[in-house]
Amino acid sequence: MTAHRSEPVGSLDAGLLSPVRAATPVEAEVDDQAWLRAMIEAEVALARAQARLGTVPAQAAEVIAAVGADAELDLVALAHAARETANPVVGFVQALTAAVADRDALAADYVHRGSTSQDVLDTAAMLVTRRAVRLILADLDRCRAALERLARGHRDTPMAGRTLTLHAVPTTFGLKAAGWLDLVRQATHRLQTLADTLPVELGGAAGTLAGYLEYAGHGDTGDGAARERRRAEAAAYGEALTAAYADELNLAVPLLPWHVLRTPLADVAAATSFLAGALGKIAVDVQSLARTEVGEVSEPGPAGRGASSAMPHKRNPVLATLIRSAALQLPQLAAGLYGCMLTEDERSGGAWHAEWQPLRECLRLAGGAAHTAAELLTGLEPHPERMRANLDLTDGQIVSERVAAVLTPHLGKARAKAVLGAAARTAAERGCGLGTVLAELPDVTAHLDEEEINGLLDPARYTGAASALTDRALRA
Amino acid sequence: MTAHRSEPVGSLDAGLLSPVRAATPVEAEVDDQAWLRAMIEAEVALARAQARLGTVPAQAAEVIAAVGADAELDLVALAHAARETANPVVGFVQALTAAVADRDALAADYVHRGSTSQDVLDTAAMLVTRRAVRLILADLDRCRAALERLARGHRDTPMAGRTLTLHAVPTTFGLKAAGWLDLVRQATHRLQTLADTLPVELGGAAGTLAGYLEYAGHGDTGDGAARERRRAEAAAYGEALTAAYADELNLAVPLLPWHVLRTPLADVAAATSFLAGALGKIAVDVQSLARTEVGEVSEPGPAGRGASSAMPHKRNPVLATLIRSAALQLPQLAAGLYGCMLTEDERSGGAWHAEWQPLRECLRLAGGAAHTAAELLTGLEPHPERMRANLDLTDGQIVSERVAAVLTPHLGKARAKAVLGAAARTAAERGCGLGTVLAELPDVTAHLDEEEINGLLDPARYTGAASALTDRALRA
Amino acid sequence: MTAHRSEPVGSLDAGLLSPVRAATPVEAEVDDQAWLRAMIEAEVALARAQARLGTVPAQAAEVIAAVGADAELDLVALAHAARETANPVVGFVQALTAAVADRDALAADYVHRGSTSQDVLDTAAMLVTRRAVRLILADLDRCRAALERLARGHRDTPMAGRTLTLHAVPTTFGLKAAGWLDLVRQATHRLQTLADTLPVELGGAAGTLAGYLEYAGHGDTGDGAARERRRAEAAAYGEALTAAYADELNLAVPLLPWHVLRTPLADVAAATSFLAGALGKIAVDVQSLARTEVGEVSEPGPAGRGASSAMPHKRNPVLATLIRSAALQLPQLAAGLYGCMLTEDERSGGAWHAEWQPLRECLRLAGGAAHTAAELLTGLEPHPERMRANLDLTDGQIVSERVAAVLTPHLGKARAKAVLGAAARTAAERGCGLGTVLAELPDVTAHLDEEEINGLLDPARYTGAASALTDRALRA
Amino acid sequence: MTAHRSEPVGSLDAGLLSPVRAATPVEAEVDDQAWLRAMIEAEVALARAQARLGTVPAQAAEVIAAVGADAELDLVALAHAARETANPVVGFVQALTAAVADRDALAADYVHRGSTSQDVLDTAAMLVTRRAVRLILADLDRCRAALERLARGHRDTPMAGRTLTLHAVPTTFGLKAAGWLDLVRQATHRLQTLADTLPVELGGAAGTLAGYLEYAGHGDTGDGAARERRRAEAAAYGEALTAAYADELNLAVPLLPWHVLRTPLADVAAATSFLAGALGKIAVDVQSLARTEVGEVSEPGPAGRGASSAMPHKRNPVLATLIRSAALQLPQLAAGLYGCMLTEDERSGGAWHAEWQPLRECLRLAGGAAHTAAELLTGLEPHPERMRANLDLTDGQIVSERVAAVLTPHLGKARAKAVLGAAARTAAERGCGLGTVLAELPDVTAHLDEEEINGLLDPARYTGAASALTDRALRA
Repeated sequence: MTAHRSEPVGSLDAGLLSPVRAATPVEAEVDDQAWLRAMIEAEVALARAQARLGTVPAQAAEVIAAVGADAELDLVALAHAARETANPVVGFVQALTAAVADRDALAADYVHRGSTSQDVLDTAAMLVTRRAVRLILADLDRCRAALERLARGHRDTPMAGRTLTLHAVPTTFGLKAAGWLDLVRQATHRLQTLADTLPVELGGAAGTLAGYLEYAGHGDTGDGAARERRRAEAAAYGEALTAAYADELNLAVPLLPWHVLRTPLADVAAATSFLAGALGKIAVDVQSLARTEVGEVSEPGPAGRGASSAMPHKRNPVLATLIRSAALQLPQLAAGLYGCMLTEDERSGGAWHAEWQPLRECLRLAGGAAHTAAELLTGLEPHPERMRANLDLTDGQIVSERVAAVLTPHLGKARAKAVLGAAARTAAERGCGLGTVLAELPDVTAHLDEEEINGLLDPARYTGAASALTDRALRA
Repeated sequence: MTAHRSEPVGSLDAGLLSPVRAATPVEAEVDDQAWLRAMIEAEVALARAQARLGTVPAQAAEVIAAVGADAELDLVALAHAARETANPVVGFVQALTAAVADRDALAADYVHRGSTSQDVLDTAAMLVTRRAVRLILADLDRCRAALERLARGHRDTPMAGRTLTLHAVPTTFGLKAAGWLDLVRQATHRLQTLADTLPVELGGAAGTLAGYLEYAGHGDTGDGAARERRRAEAAAYGEALTAAYADELNLAVPLLPWHVLRTPLADVAAATSFLAGALGKIAVDVQSLARTEVGEVSEPGPAGRGASSAMPHKRNPVLATLIRSAALQLPQLAAGLYGCMLTEDERSGGAWHAEWQPLRECLRLAGGAAHTAAELLTGLEPHPERMRANLDLTDGQIVSERVAAVLTPHLGKARAKAVLGAAARTAAERGCGLGTVLAELPDVTAHLDEEEINGLLDPARYTGAASALTDRALRA
Repeated sequence: MTAHRSEPVGSLDAGLLSPVRAATPVEAEVDDQAWLRAMIEAEVALARAQARLGTVPAQAAEVIAAVGADAELDLVALAHAARETANPVVGFVQALTAAVADRDALAADYVHRGSTSQDVLDTAAMLVTRRAVRLILADLDRCRAALERLARGHRDTPMAGRTLTLHAVPTTFGLKAAGWLDLVRQATHRLQTLADTLPVELGGAAGTLAGYLEYAGHGDTGDGAARERRRAEAAAYGEALTAAYADELNLAVPLLPWHVLRTPLADVAAATSFLAGALGKIAVDVQSLARTEVGEVSEPGPAGRGASSAMPHKRNPVLATLIRSAALQLPQLAAGLYGCMLTEDERSGGAWHAEWQPLRECLRLAGGAAHTAAELLTGLEPHPERMRANLDLTDGQIVSERVAAVLTPHLGKARAKAVLGAAARTAAERGCGLGTVLAELPDVTAHLDEEEINGLLDPARYTGAASALTDRALRA
Repeated sequence: MTAHRSEPVGSLDAGLLSPVRAATPVEAEVDDQAWLRAMIEAEVALARAQARLGTVPAQAAEVIAAVGADAELDLVALAHAARETANPVVGFVQALTAAVADRDALAADYVHRGSTSQDVLDTAAMLVTRRAVRLILADLDRCRAALERLARGHRDTPMAGRTLTLHAVPTTFGLKAAGWLDLVRQATHRLQTLADTLPVELGGAAGTLAGYLEYAGHGDTGDGAARERRRAEAAAYGEALTAAYADELNLAVPLLPWHVLRTPLADVAAATSFLAGALGKIAVDVQSLARTEVGEVSEPGPAGRGASSAMPHKRNPVLATLIRSAALQLPQLAAGLYGCMLTEDERSGGAWHAEWQPLRECLRLAGGAAHTAAELLTGLEPHPERMRANLDLTDGQIVSERVAAVLTPHLGKARAKAVLGAAARTAAERGCGLGTVLAELPDVTAHLDEEEINGLLDPARYTGAASALTDRALRA
């Protein structure tokens, strides 16, 4: 694994500190190169949209597109230049303009025409987001398929339901998987809605489109009716430009320029936080069930997976660990994005700039977690025999609720519960089964014979509507 | 303002530290009394739902309802008892049962029948949430009306667009108000969707409905086909019970019990965070415009409002301050709610319990902020003459982008921008208007005469599509 | 538990939604009444400090003190009035002034003399904080004593060390308790330092003390040397006033007025977040060990503690649950406090106001968690026999690291680890002990006889320096 | 700025989305390469420490050191391999071992001897942290020097004090700078303390040092007194090893292994959050003062700095913008670190792993913000003439508090305040100065002649103890 490397070309973040997304597909879609590509696409789309409306020569737009397709911009230099203007677009536009000028001096005048940094960066952010979300949706589809299989396959597999760390009453692994399935579907729904509504940003320096209109010859001149006519034409041009721009990029048309109306960012925050929570729930459940003492599920285990640097015998639940590590990080990043909605004036000095890295990290963690979850769920191995063994661990106590319910019509609720509580304590003290104690209590034996008691104490017979609920979830 | 008070009956939180919601309607809908009322409603609805299905005597359900309507439970004692079980429901059920038993000993057995703490508290949380959200929606409707009026009334009022704290290019106050309107509408949409989908929670101890089924005589007994038939009947009963319960409370029917599938909480987090960001944006804009040096808007000012304890001359923008104070707090609380999605097993030992106070605080801050925003926007006074005066402050520089655009076809983009940049610096150094400098530059005078220059330098003539965008927002 | 209540006197927050602090001592020290008392104390101290310097009549100061001691201000009305000015001090000063005027019209003129809202509220916040922190320190002392006992008593009690949910290598319960002890000591240190440095705030309207100086006759008048002399006297007076004010309240003297230098708030955020993390770590450990399948510790159990509303047999680890619920909430609140350091100008329109409720909640959760932790740790019951039984669960695998270490000099590191890895897998497949497999491997038997193998496989013999580290922690 | 690049070697994060730290020194100290270097240093130090104690051959340690110094490990491959084990150390140790084996097969057995992933990664984290903090401290020293100069130079420069966006009373720019200075000093203090206490982590697989002891021949064997003697020797060895390891790296010796006692991480969170808040406060102040309408400070402006992509005339306050962008992000990341203190068992499956990226980002943002602040403060240009002009903007109202104070002895507090309030309103309505109105009021003229009124209304004469407080801060 030793290798010669060329000189570092800037700060490397290969996922050494974030294995949940290292080497997953989302990485390449959200790194600095990907953002730079998206910025180029935004500029190309802008030129082409203007060309479609006749306000930029078609030839110039195509030169810009051609240069955009193969320009080799110095990303590190651009990043460093971003300090001069607090955003990476100013330097990028200079570099792109220079590259276009190398090919066609006249075309260079049409780069970023009438535009502003935020139009380019916000639109690029939407492109990057959509690509990341599409990858996530594909992974969620794998999760969904795996979960449907698990829920269906274990529809009737009883296991201990646990609350506040203790056995409560039985449930089924099928219902657990069905719950996970519901979360994955909900996450899918939120991310799909997001992907379908990501808008272009086009507003110019203060969101009025004035620059675009002026360069297009739609400046506000004249008086009276002539002026009104010109203004109407200008407005129509602005609307057409936004539509053409959106069409070029296959993004949605926003109601208004959203330079300071940060709905799309908030929606990314919500959808990725939800995803993180949904997958994080699955991860903590897997961890709970994978404990040495519990042993009810195992992670899929290719050779080497889950190895410890020190302990030869361990096979760690590393996939759940990775997912949980992402889920623990994401809500805070999302809170930051929501906080950036407080963006004063027509562009904040800071609140806009504080969005970019957290946005990227939200997408990266979400993408990594989804990919990891697909791998986890596709290969997850439930162990029904351990589930059954654990169900029997408390020797009947896990169904004490049921016995109380059956006795309630005879003893009243309070007394029934008290009888069961006392019996449970007695059984624990004597180290015997709950059934043994119950069979000795006149309050019980007056109403139930030994066979009935034993029937009631079978945990597999107290899973309620678990199977039906699993079916319901599978049908949804 | 001095008054005798009876002995404190528990920790008081009257909003002394949270004036954004002090004395606003949301307070009474989310305080401890309101939660207790909602818990009672959940229990009553459960009994009635069971009565509708014939598994609880109608008479018992009505006694429970009657006691629920007038029981005087000792809230402070219940809160203290909550420490014993980590949640307030166990003690509450005991107290309610005792109160019912006082009226009708038999009915007492039907309180909380087959149920579990979480079913009651989660359902109560949804009731409380819905009431808070309805209040918020009403206030947002007032905001919407005020913003439509402002946007329409100032459709053509020019003002400085500001980016990174500096004048950028002109915009209009109408467009600013239209942007706020869009945010308010988006918040409304998210909250309405939330209100329409809040579900009852009904699952029993581990989400299988087993307790409900057992008490209803739908326990899992028999074998073969008889057992299957019984299980199908049990499943049908579970579905019917959930439907009846939801119908009693006018809440939605969930796909599955969501005791550990915390979608509704996550959705509250998202909707209230969005609202906070939307109103917070309006607040920071108002603050920016209210600055002594800017003076473009004033808050509505009843006598005493905004008074300072020390400075007689001040009239502080207190409503914007209150709104911003809420907006700064809410995203962190929401992040906590998202974090609680990582709830292990069938009930977490802590992650569930960490939701309640942040949920209440999210609702309370959101409700207070919405109410305050309605007051702010209904009475907000824009000052067009100060907007105009500020537009003229830079003596033409605010439209330098426009002049550059006009010169670009003549000079090329780079040269045009350089000419304007130099002219702006010269004007600043000489302390004269940009027009004066431009009128001396051959690069300019070769293409523009003085009248043209002056026309271009009128800020009111460089608001782009602001008016049209305002119309568009008003039509939406 | 039913009781008649007087009419609600404002929003009640008795801890129904926050049982971690319900009925704990901290509640009464941080509720609205406590803040109001602290505000009164601040005003009284200010008057007395001025009286000590002769700029307020001693008689007036004592009237203010007397009224402060028994005034019955209408807290709810004050909270509601806070909306008018965005803070509760303006209305409070009016009410206090009126109450003083009722007693002594002349004295009323000396209430809040030269002061500003923030001086009063910030100083009150420090008083409230100190009281809460003192309670916390007392509870931490109980935690410390309990942990010393546990660490000492279980210095040599072996148990499984667990990493990533799986058995790793043995450790001792003593070392675990010693680690908790270290965290509690670190938290104590941070909170003690905080308590010792909490400063008064005294700055006047913009932090210059100008109002105080002017009312004291130290206005800036005169010219030349006379003016300089007066200014020096004024400065000396300002310094003396701050010192006297601090002395009255037994708070620290700050270097500068800190109205917009929010170091004290940030320090509260850090200290309470640390505490929450420290106690939260203990809580998640207790939960992990309390699991039905693990059973290595039990929470202290008075009758009724940990009861379930549905399941008679359960005794939930409710104290750990409560602590964890606080620990999950606190970091987000603290992040909000840090965020409020970005307080623009001489007083922010919102960032100051967003501190109050989160500050109170940080203190309340920290206080509740500390009190709960003292109860938990004082009564925690470890079960050494279950620890031993669990150690034996993997039949030797938990010490595979040791065997690999012993074989390394003979086989080389890589081969030793490979041999153990293969043996562990074989043992798992055959369902037999690791010793059985090892005793069949020539690579092993060439270097170790059966007795040596068995000796190496005793988990109690592979606890490393656990006991010594425990001693070290106890000595610290 | 176009350039040919070699093939991407992994995800690049050159700061394109985080210009606050792009090209600042901290980047190279915290990127993946820097972490990898620190991991190598940890392994080398461990081998050397063991060699110092005679449990690893000196020759082997030196080979490991030599290979560590020039090994070219494939960082991207290591990052990808980290997915297999949920941390980057396992693969790294394999790669390092292989590289050592290439040089000296025997030495390879001594790599990572007795160790565990967490010992290496946590120690590396401390090395990385210390390097970043040292850079920050150097930049804070530059900030300090600049602020002392500003505070001293503008000790007596009056300016408007602003609260809730409005002019309140005068202050001085010197006092404002002195406040910033205090924050910078407090941040320095916290970071210096942090740097001095960063500990090595050495605990082995579960924090007992067992692996280190076993490999060193200090396993737990024998019985009775002999065993006790061996255990004491083992304990002494463990202590000596930790000390030698710490000495090699010049880090502190911890009381206990802190694998699950995350005090150091919490302390990084606190110190960097504080720094972010301190610098963020400065940034929002600079922004407030830089507004077009205010114009009281300018950022240092090399050519190109602050340029806009669209508006030739602007010179944006980009440095303050960058700093604020960092300050808005950091508290959330720090909250995540605090949350990770809830790390269950002897190593969490996720809470440990969720620390790494946020830790790096905290350091990177803090380092970038400090570097940017040094640049900002070193070149910040205050404009006293604009400060003075703004002071005069309200024509006396900014000192209404003073006049009220002077009249109080004559009129009583309430009446004095009412008179000034009315006068202020009258002046505003008539558009004249406060002095003009006051000179017409009998309540005023009975006690003050025109010259006295004018003297009182000079804002430069109502700066209280601002100059003295500035001196005090400079002396501290």
